[in-house]
Amino acid sequence: MKEQKRIKGLLSPVVTPFKSDLSPDPERFVAQCRWLITQNCGLAVFGTNSEANSLSVNERLSLLDSLLAGGVDPSHMMPGTGCCALPDTVRLTEHAVKAGCAGVLMLPPFYYKGVSEDGLYRSFAEVIERVGDARLRIYLYHIPPVAVVGITPKLVERLLKAYPTAIAGMKDSSGNWNNTKIMLDAFAKSGFDVFVGSESFLLANMRNGGAGCISATANVNPAAIDKLYREWQGADADAQQAALDAVRTTVGQYVMIPALKQVVAHYAEDPAWVTVRPPLVGLTQAQAASVIEGLKKLNFTMPGLKRAQAQAAVS
Amino acid sequence: MKEQKRIKGLLSPVVTPFKSDLSPDPERFVAQCRWLITQNCGLAVFGTNSEANSLSVNERLSLLDSLLAGGVDPSHMMPGTGCCALPDTVRLTEHAVKAGCAGVLMLPPFYYKGVSEDGLYRSFAEVIERVGDARLRIYLYHIPPVAVVGITPKLVERLLKAYPTAIAGMKDSSGNWNNTKIMLDAFAKSGFDVFVGSESFLLANMRNGGAGCISATANVNPAAIDKLYREWQGADADAQQAALDAVRTTVGQYVMIPALKQVVAHYAEDPAWVTVRPPLVGLTQAQAASVIEGLKKLNFTMPGLKRAQAQAAVS
Repeated sequence: MKEQKRIKGLLSPVVTPFKSDLSPDPERFVAQCRWLITQNCGLAVFGTNSEANSLSVNERLSLLDSLLAGGVDPSHMMPGTGCCALPDTVRLTEHAVKAGCAGVLMLPPFYYKGVSEDGLYRSFAEVIERVGDARLRIYLYHIPPVAVVGITPKLVERLLKAYPTAIAGMKDSSGNWNNTKIMLDAFAKSGFDVFVGSESFLLANMRNGGAGCISATANVNPAAIDKLYREWQGADADAQQAALDAVRTTVGQYVMIPALKQVVAHYAEDPAWVTVRPPLVGLTQAQAASVIEGLKKLNFTMPGLKRAQAQAAVS
Repeated sequence: MKEQKRIKGLLSPVVTPFKSDLSPDPERFVAQCRWLITQNCGLAVFGTNSEANSLSVNERLSLLDSLLAGGVDPSHMMPGTGCCALPDTVRLTEHAVKAGCAGVLMLPPFYYKGVSEDGLYRSFAEVIERVGDARLRIYLYHIPPVAVVGITPKLVERLLKAYPTAIAGMKDSSGNWNNTKIMLDAFAKSGFDVFVGSESFLLANMRNGGAGCISATANVNPAAIDKLYREWQGADADAQQAALDAVRTTVGQYVMIPALKQVVAHYAEDPAWVTVRPPLVGLTQAQAASVIEGLKKLNFTMPGLKRAQAQAAVS
């Protein structure tokens, strides 16, 4: 069997739109994903910034089905499938693999803290064995600031040894470049694809053998981030990185997820986008104004978004 | 409408038995719950020590249905229903209320960290509004060592003010007596029932107006804990407390959940009980032997357990 080309570059943990009753809005979601594809941005749907952990398993399955029904190519998708409960992770992962997704982004089970490396190894191994599909490509999701439970180099080593095909890479959202560097140095040469969890580290990652980035801000600034991904060896790479950082700092000055939705709502001219599910809350009006003013100072735009979303808003 | 008598005293976060394929074992589960009832112990099924967060929503619904079908009285039950995703919490809570459970033990949504008090308020409020049932009694579950996201006095105050009937009490598993004391002093007199999350604090809790305890060790030592609950004003209360603490220290010398299952397996003479779901792992043989030896030195027994479980084991 010829191996499918691995997914690389920029992916967005796509923000999930909600209707006023807090149910997911598949029309706006599909429109957003289509727009991201036009920006050369892959779809890490159901990530942390997607409020995926505020969605039920059925809601995730249904939203993925909406994308497929909407003609979005699954080879651009890396849905998040890691839950606290083994059967949930297996169900979401099976569904993604059968749908033809390029890979899955898998959190460790994150409720129980202080669990052993052996227990985490067993968690991932059980999912791989139960899914039992040669097409499965897992990207281990290390995000200790949120999940608290993390992925150690030793765990990666054990998993890679046992499942060299299924364990395809990781997303490092530790925010700690030293940790990313350790992972790159230990595993990148053997084909383990390391994605950084913020474009702040994109240039450093590419210079050290990384595979790309999966970043909150890709929801709003995909074209520029993708440009640096493609041109990281160019003379102006550091200047591009600085410009990306300025946008990220502006968007992320308050809480990231409601800020992303605020920016999408503003540039799509579609206020429905600001809705978040509890336990998150929206930005205050003052915070929202500050983010938008900051972006205007940077001459920030989201070309094509308004048109892409306009179809969803009327449907 | 006459208000139902509130549930008080000792409850056990019942350990969940798994078959060798890691699926839940309803027969052993029903037998264990029946045995706990004979020990005058209520059923906080689907708590942290139940590995509830390693169960899917459907598995929890099905296990609760097994208890009802097995004739276990729901007025003794306080199932855990708090999940990361609002629709999951609503579904489990609705089911428990319709089944006639005395209350539900509700974790806050625990994936996103550093969320605002307003967001947590909104989470609980949405559940209450959506369930929309006057019989709902919520016990807020504060367990920061595991969930990280906690329940502050200010949040309790806001919720009690808005929903004085639905907000019935809390379980404080902070392990911090000062926190329990703050909650008792602020809210106990108005009928807010504070359960401590460990029998180590049972006597202190009862002496300060508390309602009882919901403790891991109630899985194995229910009769003695219940005795102190009933006799806390007696002359030997401190001696009883010391005896409870000795058992807890012995059982909890390694990881609590596999240790509890090891003790049940030993005294039920039913090795199938030791199975845990990942990310947990079982005790080593040496650890298991150490726990059992320690209990023997304390002349510890689990009267009636073997007979209660024997029926399940053959079925």
